[in-house]
Amino acid sequence: MSKLDRALAALDSDRQGALDRLFDLLRLPSISTDPAHVPDCAAAAEWLAGQLREVGFEASVRPTAGHPMVVGKARAARPDAPHVLFYGHYDVQPVDPLELWKAEPFAPAVVEAEPGRSQIVARGAADDKGQLMTFVEACRALHADGGLPCHVTILFEGEEESGSSSLPAFLAANGKELKADLMLVCDTNMWDRDTPLITCMLRGLVLEEVIVKAASRDLHSGMFGGPAVNPIHVLARIVAGLHDDDGRVTLPGFYDGVPELPEEIKAQWAALDFNEAAFLGDVGLSVPAGEANYSVLEQIWARPTCDVNGIVGGYIGEGSKTVLPAQASAKFSFRLVGKQNPQSVIDAFREHVRKSLPEDCEAEFLSHGASPALSLPFRSEAILRASRALEAEWGRPPVLAASGGSIPIVGLFKRELKMDSLMVGFGLDDDRIHSPNEKYELSSFQKGARSWVRILTALAE
Amino acid sequence: MSKLDRALAALDSDRQGALDRLFDLLRLPSISTDPAHVPDCAAAAEWLAGQLREVGFEASVRPTAGHPMVVGKARAARPDAPHVLFYGHYDVQPVDPLELWKAEPFAPAVVEAEPGRSQIVARGAADDKGQLMTFVEACRALHADGGLPCHVTILFEGEEESGSSSLPAFLAANGKELKADLMLVCDTNMWDRDTPLITCMLRGLVLEEVIVKAASRDLHSGMFGGPAVNPIHVLARIVAGLHDDDGRVTLPGFYDGVPELPEEIKAQWAALDFNEAAFLGDVGLSVPAGEANYSVLEQIWARPTCDVNGIVGGYIGEGSKTVLPAQASAKFSFRLVGKQNPQSVIDAFREHVRKSLPEDCEAEFLSHGASPALSLPFRSEAILRASRALEAEWGRPPVLAASGGSIPIVGLFKRELKMDSLMVGFGLDDDRIHSPNEKYELSSFQKGARSWVRILTALAE
Repeated sequence: MSKLDRALAALDSDRQGALDRLFDLLRLPSISTDPAHVPDCAAAAEWLAGQLREVGFEASVRPTAGHPMVVGKARAARPDAPHVLFYGHYDVQPVDPLELWKAEPFAPAVVEAEPGRSQIVARGAADDKGQLMTFVEACRALHADGGLPCHVTILFEGEEESGSSSLPAFLAANGKELKADLMLVCDTNMWDRDTPLITCMLRGLVLEEVIVKAASRDLHSGMFGGPAVNPIHVLARIVAGLHDDDGRVTLPGFYDGVPELPEEIKAQWAALDFNEAAFLGDVGLSVPAGEANYSVLEQIWARPTCDVNGIVGGYIGEGSKTVLPAQASAKFSFRLVGKQNPQSVIDAFREHVRKSLPEDCEAEFLSHGASPALSLPFRSEAILRASRALEAEWGRPPVLAASGGSIPIVGLFKRELKMDSLMVGFGLDDDRIHSPNEKYELSSFQKGARSWVRILTALAE
Repeated sequence: MSKLDRALAALDSDRQGALDRLFDLLRLPSISTDPAHVPDCAAAAEWLAGQLREVGFEASVRPTAGHPMVVGKARAARPDAPHVLFYGHYDVQPVDPLELWKAEPFAPAVVEAEPGRSQIVARGAADDKGQLMTFVEACRALHADGGLPCHVTILFEGEEESGSSSLPAFLAANGKELKADLMLVCDTNMWDRDTPLITCMLRGLVLEEVIVKAASRDLHSGMFGGPAVNPIHVLARIVAGLHDDDGRVTLPGFYDGVPELPEEIKAQWAALDFNEAAFLGDVGLSVPAGEANYSVLEQIWARPTCDVNGIVGGYIGEGSKTVLPAQASAKFSFRLVGKQNPQSVIDAFREHVRKSLPEDCEAEFLSHGASPALSLPFRSEAILRASRALEAEWGRPPVLAASGGSIPIVGLFKRELKMDSLMVGFGLDDDRIHSPNEKYELSSFQKGARSWVRILTALAE
């Protein structure tokens, strides 16, 4: 029996123990946004450090300006083994509205959702306590049988749900200690309950706000309507000028660095049982509104966008008010892919705005963030090895997917520590994270731990 | 001594009595929007009915669903005299913020603003108690000397500041009784302290709201950004498409019925001491933004407009939120002139919106009102006679002006009773109506009453 098989067998024979440990963690109401739960967050950190020590890590709880970090380190027997950094977070979302929970959010239970399909129900079951414990349990099984195949550093934070505000400073101060060859993140979903998924690309995000200012105060449209420039009209022209009739963004240079998809990935995505009509129909739409000639999945996963997320100006109450407002503002977001440069996008956008301003108008710009797209190349060694490992566990190759949204911490590690991330998670789209009755499939928890045993082994082969 | 001269002399010799009577009215806090002041509004109505009886009117207080109306009727000695209906309102604006008043709002006083320039300070001093009492005092002087030169009906309402909500039903029920040859309204301003003004035209107003609806719920721009149609973009295109580069409204047929100004009026306006740079500079602007090739006064007084008065969609709080909103809405106002047809404007506007909607979007329309422009022809008999009367009083001819704003009740009387209005008022732009420390020039009050004596006399000649 290989070491791999022995570790998998160990996991299978201690399923109840693993569940008990997860339940211990789930019982701690570590809500990071609520000051009342500061001690619970600290308790969760201490509990995790204890777990890591139990499975062979040198572990410590590190104070921050907010909730503490947990750092654990374990070396592989082979000195030349690859070094991975695993990231997870022990904090959870608030539980309100509490009345919509069928059971206490911090009293975890296994519930049979349908015959043969059990789910762990509790706040944090999926996001992210259940997911991070898949990795800890994998380490436990490997540790019990002679140690880990990779050098492993673990970082658990307690502020992911409240903006990871202490993380940048912590990475800046402890980067050297945390730096590894590859980061592993278990905070994403599977394609479906039976199909694993590696998130290979994350779109970047540029967040800009523009306030167009005209008169020095709100004006009456009877008194000034005509000669007074209306900042809402100016803003509308700015917005209307951002796309052409084919849904392409008109900013000069916007598509610089946008790659075309490899043919085999395009083919894999096209072959997925993704139902465009159902996806759009579910939210009351029927026609993809993005760039012409791209599928919905391509538009979301692999194409850049420009959207207005909010606009406001003048009177917005009931009825009417004949006001010419002094200003109007809008919040814009750009989703970026490939090698699009966030600063170039900002520059082109602001130039577009300035060019659109008539006499007597000025624009104030607020930046709410800018991060490039992130990706592990589809043909990289890490993805190839993780793919083989996941296929061995689940009986089918993983979907090599992208995510239309960003995962802030992945960008942060890339920026601060120049580390790429391998994103493998076992959540499902219906896990109700951030909502009442959050759950995690028991199969995700159990096969997730087995998957990590296989991935760590594969990365070291 | 002519009857006219005797009436003017009577006004001059009873200035203190007139002021005392106005103060009695100003002491009643008849705030129509505040239910706590229902008895005060009733008291003001009773007080006015009493005044009218004192000066020879048959007067009554008429209940409505809201605050009561006061109706008074007095016949001229000459049976074939013209018949006028005078309109005023006895209700006043709320007084908050109270801390900005230098004295109690309902404790009227005469204050010397500068040597030789006295002002009546109180809530309602100008709007509209002081103005309406100029007419009552004129009737008093004429009544004391053999009666009025015109048949006079008076209507005072108590809900002008809260939307005149009972007036339409009252006019519908009592139209026959109220109908006269001409309506007189004293609720407007002079050109300056020494120059009278007749408001000959009022722009009409169409108020439309559009809600553009797309997805059935708000979407996450990471998850849906690209394929999901963004209603803010759709709305921006609708707004941007409403004007061409010369500031003209693009709706087909929009300018049907828009007249060019008579040359002599254009010349009078051009000769006014109206400082475009100061007018715009006062509110932080420098360049007229309306239709090319029209002066600022023409743009405000005699040209139609289209403006967005409010727009809102998506996230409008601090920072950013990557939401694709389910809907976005905007409030539009159209100022109309001449014979522009409000319904045609609405139809053209809605057609423009519908034409601009992409797949999966729909528009909901709300109408917040529609009224045509109103005017007394510049060369009409009423304006010629009133002009001569005002010139005799003030030593200079009145400005034959227009107003960029609408006066809802003038439209209502036109609609319900088919009556044109002669709008002569003695307010000034700096009277601070609706604001703390409202005032009315003592000269406006005194010469205003004299002006009405002259106008009533001139109309009957």
